[in-house]
Amino acid sequence: MLYPKTINDLIECYKKLPGIGEKTAERMALYSLELDQEIIDLFAQSLIDLKKNIKRCKKCNNLSQDDLCSICSNSNRNNKVICVVEEPKNVFQFEKIGTYHGLYHVLDGLICPLENKNPEDINLESLLDRIEKEKIEEVIIAVKPSIEGETTALYISKILEGKDIKISKIAHGVPIGADMDYVDALTLELALEERKDITSHAE
Amino acid sequence: MLYPKTINDLIECYKKLPGIGEKTAERMALYSLELDQEIIDLFAQSLIDLKKNIKRCKKCNNLSQDDLCSICSNSNRNNKVICVVEEPKNVFQFEKIGTYHGLYHVLDGLICPLENKNPEDINLESLLDRIEKEKIEEVIIAVKPSIEGETTALYISKILEGKDIKISKIAHGVPIGADMDYVDALTLELALEERKDITSHAE
Repeated sequence: MLYPKTINDLIECYKKLPGIGEKTAERMALYSLELDQEIIDLFAQSLIDLKKNIKRCKKCNNLSQDDLCSICSNSNRNNKVICVVEEPKNVFQFEKIGTYHGLYHVLDGLICPLENKNPEDINLESLLDRIEKEKIEEVIIAVKPSIEGETTALYISKILEGKDIKISKIAHGVPIGADMDYVDALTLELALEERKDITSHAE
Repeated sequence: MLYPKTINDLIECYKKLPGIGEKTAERMALYSLELDQEIIDLFAQSLIDLKKNIKRCKKCNNLSQDDLCSICSNSNRNNKVICVVEEPKNVFQFEKIGTYHGLYHVLDGLICPLENKNPEDINLESLLDRIEKEKIEEVIIAVKPSIEGETTALYISKILEGKDIKISKIAHGVPIGADMDYVDALTLELALEERKDITSHAE
């Protein structure tokens, strides 16, 4: 053992984090020695509290400190619209925009028959339950544009077929600020297909 | 606040680490939720213990859990040679090689008149004390090849001038495995100047 035990332990812990190798972990551990005591205390306490305090929202399956997450328990949200996402992280991505005021539903995965992930393996039944009970009027499917995402979107729209519910999918196309040189062919094809009329009519 | 408080706190703490921005910190915090409880416990405990347990070795100023670091207290080391380094990290870099068996001395900085860092601002006096008291025979200067490093090396060699002590400096040159295209001019110049004779003499 090269470093004193406490530093070594800390290096090993940092190494468990995604994308952190030996060198970065060492740098982080040595840097941690220089952090203010109050930051260290908050850091350790947050780690201890993490598993204790954070659970899933009983309604939408989002991360939450309470039984219902801050979105589900907010009476100002439009409770007739549900945005379906893959992971809790996606909820926070949409929340950051600040323009969506409906509810969410976290699937915790996507349908992927190749990996043996079937509809019953993800959080779909509770979505159908909610749509029924909460008299949902629109379901926005906001999963990633991959085979798994498309399969999941198709499955949800098939199941809801015939019911009086609007089902939509977020738009795919060229992202804002992208260099056209680096946009892949499939995205361009989709962007072309889903083009929008911007003709201004003189009369 | 978008995330539940505990996650938010953790994100803020991860963001204090070097090279960690908002996105990476978020990813790390969400990933931390998935870590095993024992890792989380060790992680929190190491952070708490860090400032409490880790001090500086009274002799060489290296990081240590005890009054003397594991190197200074090891009677098998060659206690007539001191390798002078800038930071504790450097000690561990040399220890990893495993071929150096002498002692170390951590300066905690380098002389840099431009930034008002003078000889008395770094851990130099204790080095001179040690050289005297411990009857050191060789001082190896292993600081980075920068203006500050060269100034510090020159200062140490000037002070020890006339004493019966061998003073050496680690070699500079083209690093092993480097692509010659990317080696800078100054390094090449040094490598040329300090070239080694490898002539094999037939007789």
